[in-house]
Amino acid sequence: MTAEILSVGTEILLGDILNTNARFLSEELAKLGVNVYWQTVVGDNRGRLLAAYGLAFERGADLVIATGGLGPTEDDLTKETAAEYFGRKLVLHEESWERMLAHFRGRQMPPNNKKQAMLPEGAAVLANNNGTAPGCALERDGKMIVLLPGPPNEMEPMFLESVLPLLRPRTDHVLFSRTLKIVGVGESQAEILLKLLMDRQTNPTMALYAKTSEVWLRLTAAAPDEAAAKELIKPAAGEARRILGGSVYGEDGDTLAGAVVGLLRQRGLTIALAESCTGGALTSALVDVPGASEALLEGLVTYSNRAKAELLGVRAETLEKFGAVSEQTAREMAEGVRRASGASIGAATTGIAGPGGGTPEKPVGLVYITVSTDGKTEARECLFAGNRRKIRDRAVVTALDMVRKAAAGYSCST
Amino acid sequence: MTAEILSVGTEILLGDILNTNARFLSEELAKLGVNVYWQTVVGDNRGRLLAAYGLAFERGADLVIATGGLGPTEDDLTKETAAEYFGRKLVLHEESWERMLAHFRGRQMPPNNKKQAMLPEGAAVLANNNGTAPGCALERDGKMIVLLPGPPNEMEPMFLESVLPLLRPRTDHVLFSRTLKIVGVGESQAEILLKLLMDRQTNPTMALYAKTSEVWLRLTAAAPDEAAAKELIKPAAGEARRILGGSVYGEDGDTLAGAVVGLLRQRGLTIALAESCTGGALTSALVDVPGASEALLEGLVTYSNRAKAELLGVRAETLEKFGAVSEQTAREMAEGVRRASGASIGAATTGIAGPGGGTPEKPVGLVYITVSTDGKTEARECLFAGNRRKIRDRAVVTALDMVRKAAAGYSCST
Repeated sequence: MTAEILSVGTEILLGDILNTNARFLSEELAKLGVNVYWQTVVGDNRGRLLAAYGLAFERGADLVIATGGLGPTEDDLTKETAAEYFGRKLVLHEESWERMLAHFRGRQMPPNNKKQAMLPEGAAVLANNNGTAPGCALERDGKMIVLLPGPPNEMEPMFLESVLPLLRPRTDHVLFSRTLKIVGVGESQAEILLKLLMDRQTNPTMALYAKTSEVWLRLTAAAPDEAAAKELIKPAAGEARRILGGSVYGEDGDTLAGAVVGLLRQRGLTIALAESCTGGALTSALVDVPGASEALLEGLVTYSNRAKAELLGVRAETLEKFGAVSEQTAREMAEGVRRASGASIGAATTGIAGPGGGTPEKPVGLVYITVSTDGKTEARECLFAGNRRKIRDRAVVTALDMVRKAAAGYSCST
Repeated sequence: MTAEILSVGTEILLGDILNTNARFLSEELAKLGVNVYWQTVVGDNRGRLLAAYGLAFERGADLVIATGGLGPTEDDLTKETAAEYFGRKLVLHEESWERMLAHFRGRQMPPNNKKQAMLPEGAAVLANNNGTAPGCALERDGKMIVLLPGPPNEMEPMFLESVLPLLRPRTDHVLFSRTLKIVGVGESQAEILLKLLMDRQTNPTMALYAKTSEVWLRLTAAAPDEAAAKELIKPAAGEARRILGGSVYGEDGDTLAGAVVGLLRQRGLTIALAESCTGGALTSALVDVPGASEALLEGLVTYSNRAKAELLGVRAETLEKFGAVSEQTAREMAEGVRRASGASIGAATTGIAGPGGGTPEKPVGLVYITVSTDGKTEARECLFAGNRRKIRDRAVVTALDMVRKAAAGYSCST
């Protein structure tokens, strides 16, 4: 099956909004094994819309999925032109009309809203559970047009709830992916480690993606259905996990911070943080995880030497002799915040995030990260490339990974 | 002038990456007054690429801007097909070849890289200051194809540095925009305030955009050149600023955190933060601004009651009687962090970010924000809608705005 994606809206052509709908649909259609050779963006214009439908079918599509332009105003023409292209009349769809009346119950409905309940005769109507404009699917001579609303929060659920079930019986295979999330190993190192395994695989295929301080390994299998694809992926994923060991922190929707909070809670551990160059970003990453407050006792952003001394007990001699950006200070920060808070784990960062403040001895990007536990304090000296934000993001990921490993090892030492 | 944007790459058709290039180019072309009626995405395929160039010119484009597919591999065909379409040979461009050799100095260059220095005969070559693949512009019979690399960090500077100067003389007017950034006033309130002014304007036009806890007012003027457009915008922008008063925190690239840090530094003020529900996000927002360390003394994320008591001096009776999420606790947090740090301003947040932890009396979204200065402590009780992240973002914006107002008023009270 071959589909073309048609995004309708002058606001996309003006660059006012990013076309996330085309990406979402491309990704979903790829999973279904549907070929997409073209994506097109066109404005709300009758002539160009008619041309776009014609062109898509001429160049080989069986299916056109159009998003946007289903609104109540005169400008919205996607449905009208699709009906015209297939030679259909628009008729009032009672159920949609009643849904719309219910939606507006108690409030005055703008009269032009009725236009949204006018649908091409014979079309399959797709209910909108998140807005007023219903979608629809029209067919003629083995060609299909699916019309979906433009707002992603209406379009995406409608696709998943109503379009997927329509398309599945028409495709002969599905693509299913599983992603292993890796930290502490670079892309090229991961490639070397996995090369033999990756070369051997044809179904599932395996691909590496470099993210900020993370690497993702995506395994994609083609099979008649999702269950069969999952079975195909299982042995290769197991083998990759065996090779990568503790570097795999999670899968699919997992986040590194989520994995850290999960591990801390599972082991009944608590944590306290002392941040300098990461400036709250490490604390913030953990707080982003619902339930973080059970494990996170406090996070102190100690920019000034006063704060380092008074709140964390970093010694004046240490600051004087080695400076605020030093392994020694970082060690005393982690140990100090652990001691003061009574947490199982103390972690600290100090470094130079730039753009100013670098010297030949201590350049921009130099960051010390320390994690203190019951038995010992681990320290890492890092030199991160990139701008202020990238340096911070990389320091946060490294610190989270060090905490993860400390938490994983904790049960052994206590 | 009419342009069509052609994004080349199978990875876009598979939904692996979001097509931010098309949006960037659309926005830039709109500013130049260039019409864009179509955006097309096509894979790395000779036949389809040739068809795409042909189609764009047939349906009225004078200019096709293609991005992607300039890499060194056999798959990369954008340049080859453009040359073929205009009947040009590819020849070695010595300067690009030397740049590439210099880029790889000391490292081994993959041999297929030479392909990137092969450019269509007679093309204007666009230097790539951020990667190896040069861009180029070809013309024939009043039609132009501009080829740019796919990575946004190479494409965007190349467009601004090399393509803009090429296009400017060919357009008869420019669109120039200026954006006023507004905080503390909702979109509909801003609309009411500005309605008379907006209705009166035709050039510049004025449009409101709702952002998370901010509203942006964009004024766009059409004029023969940028200087004339700026002059057209000036009186309307001045009038809008007069109506909106202190709610306008900045313009264009300004951020609220940047405005706060700028104001603090300009007035020689320092700040310390005590965060509970915002969990480091407020500190992090300020630290994001280069030079923040001059004003920000410390940021304490005090999740536990111990931390609130020991680090901030919040009284046990206050926590017991009113709870951690209360105006009284928030007041003592801001006053405590200000006192302990010796900062000019202390700010604090405490609330329920959800998804758990809400009660009928203290629902999810309830946040107390306080700002303590020399003279007094201002407190605000907020009920924010949305998920955990939105509640945090809204609390951060509100806190920043309160700090901004406190800093602006500081000189009066001292």
